Formats: sequence, C-alpha cells, structure tokens
Amino acid sequence: MRLSPLMAVFALWTLSVAAGTPPRAVTPAMAATAQQLMQHARSANTGYAIVESLTTEVGPRLAGTAAEGRARQWAVARLKDLGFHNVRVEPFEVPLWLRGIERAEIISPFPQPLTITALGGSASTGADGVEGEVVSFESLAALEAAPEGSLQGKIVFVDEVMTRSRDGSGYAVAVAKRRKTAFTAQSFGASAALIRSVGTSSHRFAHTGQMRRIDYKGQPGVPMAALTAPDADQLRRALSHGNPVVVKLVITPQLLPPSESGNVIAEIPGTAAPDEIVLVGAHLDSWDLGTGAIDDGAGVGIVIGAAKLLLDVLPHAPRRTIRIVLFGSEEVGLVGAQAYAEQHAGELHNHVIATESDFGAGDIWRFDTGVADSKVALAEAIGELLLPLGIEPGTNTASGGPDMKYLREAGVPVVGLKQNGWDYFDLHHTPDDTLDKIALDALHQNIAAYAVFLYLAAEIEADFR
Amino acid sequence: MRLSPLMAVFALWTLSVAAGTPPRAVTPAMAATAQQLMQHARSANTGYAIVESLTTEVGPRLAGTAAEGRARQWAVARLKDLGFHNVRVEPFEVPLWLRGIERAEIISPFPQPLTITALGGSASTGADGVEGEVVSFESLAALEAAPEGSLQGKIVFVDEVMTRSRDGSGYAVAVAKRRKTAFTAQSFGASAALIRSVGTSSHRFAHTGQMRRIDYKGQPGVPMAALTAPDADQLRRALSHGNPVVVKLVITPQLLPPSESGNVIAEIPGTAAPDEIVLVGAHLDSWDLGTGAIDDGAGVGIVIGAAKLLLDVLPHAPRRTIRIVLFGSEEVGLVGAQAYAEQHAGELHNHVIATESDFGAGDIWRFDTGVADSKVALAEAIGELLLPLGIEPGTNTASGGPDMKYLREAGVPVVGLKQNGWDYFDLHHTPDDTLDKIALDALHQNIAAYAVFLYLAAEIEADFR
Repeated sequence: MRLSPLMAVFALWTLSVAAGTPPRAVTPAMAATAQQLMQHARSANTGYAIVESLTTEVGPRLAGTAAEGRARQWAVARLKDLGFHNVRVEPFEVPLWLRGIERAEIISPFPQPLTITALGGSASTGADGVEGEVVSFESLAALEAAPEGSLQGKIVFVDEVMTRSRDGSGYAVAVAKRRKTAFTAQSFGASAALIRSVGTSSHRFAHTGQMRRIDYKGQPGVPMAALTAPDADQLRRALSHGNPVVVKLVITPQLLPPSESGNVIAEIPGTAAPDEIVLVGAHLDSWDLGTGAIDDGAGVGIVIGAAKLLLDVLPHAPRRTIRIVLFGSEEVGLVGAQAYAEQHAGELHNHVIATESDFGAGDIWRFDTGVADSKVALAEAIGELLLPLGIEPGTNTASGGPDMKYLREAGVPVVGLKQNGWDYFDLHHTPDDTLDKIALDALHQNIAAYAVFLYLAAEIEADFR
Repeated sequence: MRLSPLMAVFALWTLSVAAGTPPRAVTPAMAATAQQLMQHARSANTGYAIVESLTTEVGPRLAGTAAEGRARQWAVARLKDLGFHNVRVEPFEVPLWLRGIERAEIISPFPQPLTITALGGSASTGADGVEGEVVSFESLAALEAAPEGSLQGKIVFVDEVMTRSRDGSGYAVAVAKRRKTAFTAQSFGASAALIRSVGTSSHRFAHTGQMRRIDYKGQPGVPMAALTAPDADQLRRALSHGNPVVVKLVITPQLLPPSESGNVIAEIPGTAAPDEIVLVGAHLDSWDLGTGAIDDGAGVGIVIGAAKLLLDVLPHAPRRTIRIVLFGSEEVGLVGAQAYAEQHAGELHNHVIATESDFGAGDIWRFDTGVADSKVALAEAIGELLLPLGIEPGTNTASGGPDMKYLREAGVPVVGLKQNGWDYFDLHHTPDDTLDKIALDALHQNIAAYAVFLYLAAEIEADFR
C-alpha cells in the first residue's frame, strides 16, 4: 500500500504525538494549507512579472556595475510594493572586471573570424592582441600533462566537450577547465588560451563565466577566451589538416578597483518565533552578455513569487521569519554569499533551514535535503507534500545552491529543490539568456513548490539540526 | 490503380512510341539508371566533403571580398580535381559594402545594450552614432501610413514578425520590410531605422541581408540595422511602459568602389548534343556573419555532389552538357546571375532547362516545374521517378531559384526541387549558419534527387519549351 501524502503526514503526526515528541511537525491542517498554496500558484502572476520587470527594466547587471546598483534599487522598490518587511540593502565590496574589445581570427592557413568571449577575470591582450600558433588539447588533463616548455609563445586550445545532463553534473567538470586553463597555460609559457565554451548549446554563442575569484594579487593567468561550439569545431577542423594554425586574439578587459555591491533582504516576520529564520535565496547579479533571465532572474521571480503567495493566501504569517536574500555578486565567486555569512555570523545558529533557486526555469523534479540524520524523516514529510507537483524524494546530500555554501559550512541545514537542467546550459552565461526562454508552466510549478516548502519550514516547531 | 514510377514511365514511353513522337523521352532503361543513382547517393561522400571544405577552408565569403576570391580559387581547384571539364571563372564587377562597428543601446529609460547587425547596403551613422526617440510600427504598411513629418529626427522601429512556413512564403513579406524601411523612413525625415530581424529564430542572432542592390547613385536611405528577436521583444516591452524610449545606434559600414567577383563554371560535356545545356546552379558567396553552410554551402555541395555521382555511376556522360554554375554575388542582388545571363545571351536558347539549389539543407518534398504547357507531362515523367525519395508532384509555376531569375525571364525552362524550409530561416543570414546545422541524411536525399533530375534532363531527346 502506498500512503497518500496527506495520509503519510497524518501517520507521522500521530506517531509524533504518540511518542510525546514536543516540537510540532507537519500537521494535517498544514498539509491542507499546502494544497491550497499549490492551487493558487497556477494563477499567481507575481513571479513572472518580477522576472519580466527585472530583465526589461534593468537588463544585464554584472557584479559591481551601476547596473547591479540599479537592480538593488529595483528590488528594494518592488519588495516594498509587494508588502514585505525589513526591506534593505546590505552592502559589500567586489572586484570590478569589465569586458572590452573581443575579437579573434584565424590568420592562417584559413583566414576568417572566430566568435569568442572573454572569461570573467581574464587578463587583457592589449589592443594589439596576441598572435600565435594554436596547440590543441582534448582535455584539461591533457594540457596539464604537456611536456615542459612545449607551449612557449603558443596559444593553448582546450577542446573539452561538456556532457549534457539533467542534474548539471557535467558543469562541474567543465568549470575546472574554465578555472584552471589560463593559469596552467601561463605556467607552461603560453601567450594566451582558448577553451571550447562551457555549456551544451550548438548555437553560435560563446559562454562566459568566472575563471576564479579575483584577488588583485595572484598571477592573472594568460588572456583567455571561450570559443562558441561551432567555432571550436571549426578550429578543430582547421587543425586536422595538419598544418600550423595561427590565431590572433584581441581581448581588452579591465580590472578596476573594488566597487560597491550588495545583498537585498526582505522578510515576512514570524509571528511566534520571529528570531528563527527560514532563508530563501536567489541572486540578483547576472553575466553581462544576456539579460540574466534564466540565470538568475527566474530564481528571483520564483522566490519572490512564492513568498508573495504566502502573503496572499495565508490568513496570517507563519511562526518563523521567512527571509528572502537576493545575493549580489554571485557570478564572480559567491562574494555576496560570503558577505552575508560574515555579516550574519552571530545569528546563523537561528537559521533553521535555507535554500536557493539558481538553476534556471525548468521544472523541479527532486527534493534533496541536507539536514541532521535524525531529522531526515521530518524533511521527508515536507517532501511528501511536493509529490503532487511531480517532485520525487532525493537524498540527504543537498548543497542548497551556490550561495548556500558558507551557510552550509557554518552548519545551517539546507534543502535542494532540484530543477531539470537538461537545457539550462544551452542558455546560461550566453547572450541568449533572455526572457522568452522561460516557460510559464514550469515557473508556476517552481513557485508552488517553494511556497509549500517555505510555509511548512516556517510553520512547524521542529528544527533540522 | 496507382502506377508505380517505373510503370508510369513505361506507359508514357509506350504512348510516345505508339504516337510516333520523334524526340525520345524517359525510357525504362533511364528509369533503371535513375534507381541506380538513388542507391549510390546514400554512400556518396563528395557533397558533404565539399560543404565541409568550403565552410572550413574559406569560411564567410561576402560578395566582392578577397574571401569570395578565395572561394573561386577553391572551387576551380576542387572541380578540376573531381574530374569536371571546362572549369573556369567568368568575372564581373560588384558593388563592395563592408560591415564596420555595430553597436546599439537603450539610453533611457532602461539603459542596456541591444544586439543588432547592419543590413547590407546600409548607410553609416558615423562613429559618433545617431541618438533618437524610437517610434514603433507593427508593420511596414503602418510605417508607410505614418502622418507626414511625424518622424523628424526619430528612430523608426518596424516590429513586424515573419511567419514560419515550409515553403518560405513568409520570407517574401519580410524582405519587403528589409528592402523599403530605410528609404521610407528617410522620406519621413527619420534619422535611423531598426527592424525586427527577418527570420524565425528566437535565439539572439540578428539577421542580415541586402536592403536593395546598391547603384552608387540613388538615395542611400537612413542607417538601418536589424534587432534580434529577443531584442525586438525587449524594445517592445520597454515601449509598452508608455514613456519615451531613446536609443543610440552606431553602425559604420563602408561603401567602396566596385570590386571583382565572378561565377565559377564546370561541365560534364554532352556526348550527342554538347551544345544543349542543362544548367544547375548554387551560389558561392555568403553573408559575412556565418560560414555560409546552409546558405549556400549546402547547395554547392548538393549540385557538385550530384554531378560527381553521375561521373562515378554512369557508364558514359549523358547526351547533353551538364553545366554547373556557382554564382558569385547572389546575396547582394543576384549580380552574378545577371552577369551570366548577359555573358551567355547568345546561347540561352540552347539552355534546355535550369535549376538551382539555394534553400538550405532540408529534404526536398516537392518537384515544381516551369515548362511549356505542352511539356508538363514530360517534366512530370521525370518527377515520377523522384517519388521514392518522398518528393511529391507540384505545380507548373516554379521559379527555379533566385539565380534563375534572368534565365527564366529569357525563356529558359526551369524546375524547382523544393526543400523543406521550416527551420531554414532560423539560421539563414545569421552567425549561426555553420556546418554543424547540416543533417547528412537530408543532404544525401537532395543529392539523389538532383542526380536523377540532371541525368534525365540531359539524357532525353525531348525539350521543355
């Protein structure tokens, strides 16, 4: 016999009561409220309106730029309008890196332009650019195994292909290529580096992303750019003729003094336990090439949409405080996440549970937890209520999302509402990350799931530590 | 009862013989050879190798540029290598227009960059650009109906959406927008123009294309660029807020003195009637943004691949001469097609029939004819042999392809092997027109169809006038 979610909750609740466990877990009344939230999510307009407004009225909003500042102003105004409390900006500083000219071409034997984009944090070639013979490697590992001195004055090309997957597991491998190539190439004496774009698209979009967090002191690495997949194919074909291939690369990004960024915070204050915090995040900054619709305008829309649903549907606020954190400067190395953890170090023990929406606009297919072993059953009781949304139970190894890193390391329990990322890396970090790529149905499913989770996590008495 | 293609041919042939009609039409032996050609097409490698080589070794090849010159050298060398005869370049001059800086941004109220590309033949804004308030029109017709003087100093935006279709019929409508907007806008006193990209893609690629053929004397029109579909959506949304939207446009294309272009010709000389010509074309030039794989590298591969199949499979060349013409400067106004018609005016009466492959790399679904009414049955007998390839009979209103315009006007009969163009305008004239977008199966179907058509048209005695 398979228990229905409501029956399971009731069984768990009965069990808790029978065992005399003091903190109240999920009750049948809460389960009924969760069902109400799911029903209302289908007609909730706030989530889409938020991502439409952010991507239209602000557009691209790179960490540390004036555009990111406008995004914070936009967020404060919208969150106040929507009826949230304690809306505020918590500022911090971030390294400022700005894209310049971006141009590449095959000089010989087959002269033609190549489509590229500089990787975040890359050094500049100077306006005159760098010209050199291309040496190709099938993987980062192959580059790392190159003979000493074999790359003097060469342009390194790491042609590693990212694997497409639902859970985005191919990205971690691809990110290693983006993090390390410029520095490894520099240690071998190369003059510049090209990588096949991280990402899974076969369209002619170059994929940007941070090499590693800028510290203003370390080796900058060689200037490095990503080729689109069709251009990487083209360079591979040109090399297959067996003759030397000479490429010219001109990228002129600038590294400027640290600039102001900030996290934007808004709350639904808890009624019975206002000091206990259920944190839900998304990030406000985006890469500069697109308008940051799926990364992470969608997340911003989902978490604000879900919290607004609670304001609209619940007769009164939950017991605990629900805190929305729109992180700044996520893309350039989780700078906002670290600032939050530092600025709130004194109250992290009151962070009951936390999560983030930062994996696009696909539907959620799995509910992972990252809680104390003794609290897995409790978290699973919440997960059971997500089954009608097509969300299956996961494992207790959730990361909670990129910006949850420092909270997780500080012992804050997390959950992961895992989205289908099959197509995510077709768009992510490219010029094609625009509003039209968001499907409304999936956005509504996300909003329903977050609303249910936030409500239950904030309403129960039990904790997850 | 439905006649099989072979039976139909036999019936037609018997009928012809019985009626004592002198010129030999399609015979059962020819039909059997046609079947052989179709069988061999599946393993024919030349077509794909040709498009791969052209797009890799030459890449983009805009009319009148050195790159188009390299494409002619490439074509001459390849066509000789493959065993064709009378391989030669027939030169002519073409207006030379070169793309420069391309940049646009919303200045207010929502500052952000827009992705654009200049339309072929556009005037320059100068390096300082043009700034102005945007006035939006839903269609070219709406712009044409604008009140006198209402556009002084404004930037016109024609936001007309192209209709997707299998036969490409939406393109003709969209091209009117591209041809006329800059000139209509100029007549109303506007300072620049933007159009929603011609094309059907929702990816962030701007679609270029010629406004109208440059004559160096007429009004140049205002500087004009195409916005990608997501950027046109974005501008539409920005305008929907009701406040003035100010855009800055910087495009600096250059119009240079006429430059050398040329058509490349190769033949399989006819055995019995070498003066009678069956012409098959494709165009060698491409737009500069992509590598011209589907427009028209695929066509070049298809027609060379089909002709090479005849060289490989037939025991001897057909009766008539098969002439491959790789037209130069198609994209900028059928300049090569006109040059061919002028240079060959004296022998056009010997052009038995002509066609061109210039609609991408999709499978052929229909066989249209453009022959004398009395010769429709003859052409249909050829079409019957294409049925096994999934090609249905069409109408007698074929255009034969863009470069057939002047031949058709001079009375040369044509046919159209119509390709499925459903996805063609997702790629056509954009940076995304690259080799990886070509599906090998469809290319082989095209090669089979062209081989059968060329063989039969060159082998029969009857003509189509």
